[in-house]
Amino acid sequence: MSLRGDGPAALEWAARYLDRLGELPVLAQIEPGEIRSRLPASPPEQGEPFAAVLADLEEKLLDGVTHWQSPRYFAYFANTGSEPGILAELLAATLNQVGILWRTSPVLQELEEVSCDWLRQLLGLPDKFQGHIEDSASTATLAALGAARAAAPGRRVVVTSEQAHSSVAKAARILELEARIVPVDAAYRLRPELLELDQACAVVATIGTTSAASIDPVAAIADACSATGTWLHVDAAYAGPAAMCEELRPLFAGWERADSIVVNPHKWLLTPMDCSVLWTTRLEDFRNAYSLVPEYLRSPDEVVSLSEVAVPLGRRFRALKLWAVLRCYGRESLQAILREHVRLAAEFERWIEDEPGWEVCAQRHFSLVCFRREETDEENEALLERVNASGEVFLSHTRLDGRYVLRLAIGNARTTEDDVRLAWDVLRREAR
Amino acid sequence: MSLRGDGPAALEWAARYLDRLGELPVLAQIEPGEIRSRLPASPPEQGEPFAAVLADLEEKLLDGVTHWQSPRYFAYFANTGSEPGILAELLAATLNQVGILWRTSPVLQELEEVSCDWLRQLLGLPDKFQGHIEDSASTATLAALGAARAAAPGRRVVVTSEQAHSSVAKAARILELEARIVPVDAAYRLRPELLELDQACAVVATIGTTSAASIDPVAAIADACSATGTWLHVDAAYAGPAAMCEELRPLFAGWERADSIVVNPHKWLLTPMDCSVLWTTRLEDFRNAYSLVPEYLRSPDEVVSLSEVAVPLGRRFRALKLWAVLRCYGRESLQAILREHVRLAAEFERWIEDEPGWEVCAQRHFSLVCFRREETDEENEALLERVNASGEVFLSHTRLDGRYVLRLAIGNARTTEDDVRLAWDVLRREAR
Repeated sequence: MSLRGDGPAALEWAARYLDRLGELPVLAQIEPGEIRSRLPASPPEQGEPFAAVLADLEEKLLDGVTHWQSPRYFAYFANTGSEPGILAELLAATLNQVGILWRTSPVLQELEEVSCDWLRQLLGLPDKFQGHIEDSASTATLAALGAARAAAPGRRVVVTSEQAHSSVAKAARILELEARIVPVDAAYRLRPELLELDQACAVVATIGTTSAASIDPVAAIADACSATGTWLHVDAAYAGPAAMCEELRPLFAGWERADSIVVNPHKWLLTPMDCSVLWTTRLEDFRNAYSLVPEYLRSPDEVVSLSEVAVPLGRRFRALKLWAVLRCYGRESLQAILREHVRLAAEFERWIEDEPGWEVCAQRHFSLVCFRREETDEENEALLERVNASGEVFLSHTRLDGRYVLRLAIGNARTTEDDVRLAWDVLRREAR
Repeated sequence: MSLRGDGPAALEWAARYLDRLGELPVLAQIEPGEIRSRLPASPPEQGEPFAAVLADLEEKLLDGVTHWQSPRYFAYFANTGSEPGILAELLAATLNQVGILWRTSPVLQELEEVSCDWLRQLLGLPDKFQGHIEDSASTATLAALGAARAAAPGRRVVVTSEQAHSSVAKAARILELEARIVPVDAAYRLRPELLELDQACAVVATIGTTSAASIDPVAAIADACSATGTWLHVDAAYAGPAAMCEELRPLFAGWERADSIVVNPHKWLLTPMDCSVLWTTRLEDFRNAYSLVPEYLRSPDEVVSLSEVAVPLGRRFRALKLWAVLRCYGRESLQAILREHVRLAAEFERWIEDEPGWEVCAQRHFSLVCFRREETDEENEALLERVNASGEVFLSHTRLDGRYVLRLAIGNARTTEDDVRLAWDVLRREAR
């Protein structure tokens, strides 16, 4: 096995995969257990050539892939593994850096700091924010709330809206904080006049909620947090990159007053899984919460390692792909992609609005449209199942005000207006 | 940018990197801030070709790489990013799967279950253990202790030895469990007669501790856990793969009685960062601790998603590289590599023992040798700094019984007897 010997075939498989995304059913069309049943029950005694791995990937595994890279993937929050990001992952795996201490990979730590700072600048955040990379927004939110808990002893409540992501509840459970859930208004925004911050160590506000991409009134929440000395964590995991576009930046008003912010480049910023950026103005509180330096991790270098401000000790060289994406696209191309996604979502929204029998279910700000047939929940659910079973497109759902709602999320850089038009055609066809 | 256009140059850079590992200083020979200072303070406005990324990797970043892939990397726990693992990462980034629910990537979930099961069989663990992959042993231990805490309400103590990894203390801090530290015997093993399991929800036993690769008496600890209904978590993050070799398997006696076990294929099993396998016989307790299924994550599939038993919601397609490694090496080659590392460590240990002025500081079981000059701590510390500053090899240190001790860990598949011999030559040269 060698990179020169086996690499070209792997690279060609990868390139051909991206070429034929349009031909593959978006949602895997198989039953649970089917992939497992195709594989040997036990590992081989002798090694096999890498070509056998590639052959099995094509013949046995591909049917089990739900094609997130497809231009017709519109479920959850669509994403893109871009070519610079993919090749950077090849290089990162080759370098196989393990970020434990600065000295175990100076380049990992410094490029992580630089690329998070570049992204901070693109989003228009002030330079008081220091960033590092976590695997997911779940981990980032857990880390932030753990730091907030440590910074406010005895305050055991985290306050958030009923539209907050489930990772807030999960972090609260792990940290044994009481989750105090604030109702939302008709636009699915946290109602700041209902905030009760006594005993609260943190508030989690969301810009771009998971169900409806609604936007909490962050400035008003920041006022309440300032008045009570409460940590403000802003979850902009999905929507964050949109702050690159000046015309969308007003939607982020107030987030510059947060204590911590999470944005996922692996969602709407062309970076392959996994890459979640966590900025904070209170790095020392993270260090207080997470730093533990046993003797075997002491070094003569006078540098605070990223592992001292995060939950895991060892970290992968994720910064390389984020840096490659920012380099190879540049601000203007990134803005153009984000704007095109917002434009396509607005188009789709207009088609829904103009069509009798369909309704838009939430105000659209970014690239997510929530909608439904003016029928029963059961009919909408059955419609979604038929649409996804066609393999032509993949959408997901949520409930808003107790009603079953379909979600079309645009976030793949390969998606064109034709793809969105196809989704609309399939939806109307299956609704008949 | 395209994979066909830019991929060959990236692949060639990667291949050439592996070719010239022998020429590069193992520990990065730079000062903190140097890499950052070489990079523009702000991201580009317009995109740049991927070739610019590759050029900067060579000219600006490479000096900041500590070469974990070097055959002369002997610090912490040495690892290997093998060629099948590297190419699998290229493919995984291309597929860009996001494991949230089974349906978002059936192949991710089922290949993760299959590859963890293959590894379980290789290690000789019974089939009651169900495995999944976490990013790091830190996260796996946090997850296991969180499940143990939830399974034993009111029991707020985690018991472990003073030689346990710092991730146990970190997890205890996050979970607000009291860490009760048990003294070790002269061989750095937890003294089971000192276990006090009242109020304990879990015990963490280690097979292959970080400082000395010592082995806790797991069978005796399991007895105590059984008698008190206490969760036993076994940390075999480093040493675990050695259980593939029949002659080493007795060192693991008792681990088959654990409630959870963590082994890191990204350490001594040829898998690029990150890949930490967590097995448990109590998956339902993990689900009780971590499952949260909001409406937007409901699906018609009747499958428990891996995200229901783990801290993060979204997971990367890490299984592909583990599967590729197990496929492309097969049991026999994996055993041969492990055995050669153990043999080389035994050789090095013998050279130390035979040389006046040097001493071995802990019993060697696996591929880690703890040793020192029969001099002061300060002289040993200065020796290590000189050795690492040479760039010829990279070792790390710890303290045992209060004394400064050098650690030589063999774990890179490219390491030969010549490399270990060179380490010994450099050590003796710098000691003069």
